[in-house]
Amino acid sequence: MRLSFHVRVYITLRPSVLDPAGAAVTRNLQHLGYGVAEVRIGKYVEFTLEAMSETDATAQVEALCDQVLTNPVVETYRYDLLPAPVSAQS
Amino acid sequence: MRLSFHVRVYITLRPSVLDPAGAAVTRNLQHLGYGVAEVRIGKYVEFTLEAMSETDATAQVEALCDQVLTNPVVETYRYDLLPAPVSAQS
Repeated sequence: MRLSFHVRVYITLRPSVLDPAGAAVTRNLQHLGYGVAEVRIGKYVEFTLEAMSETDATAQVEALCDQVLTNPVVETYRYDLLPAPVSAQS
Repeated sequence: MRLSFHVRVYITLRPSVLDPAGAAVTRNLQHLGYGVAEVRIGKYVEFTLEAMSETDATAQVEALCDQVLTNPVVETYRYDLLPAPVSAQS
């Protein structure tokens, strides 16, 4: 039986990598009066995944993150793997 | 006393809004053999925030999300507000 998962991947620049866009947003938000600092801008990817098991799903998510969704030289990622509800996505 | 928070904002297109980039990634990943569907691409923003209280922090985060970080016509967001560790960010 195929299992369905809802996957959320959070992709961020490695802490050692400069984020000029984040620095610009930091300056602008401070200028507007917000007490923010160290803004870092990343990507967020959601999808549904069919897999044979949770282990298979984990392996597929890590493979596609490592090989397609991120550039491992400058980016890191973390992800949530959730049992998918009945094909509903809010 | 000023409190420091670590904020994570997840910005996604509203479900009713077409996501051509996500559709392209869906097709490409399926082509590569991954059992994925309904890929949606969003933004992920992390920052630290100084505020007088958790209530103040929540108000600031919602204001800057509504007014600066997102376009409420086509995007929605959710966020996590975490007590900041001693100025460390991994």
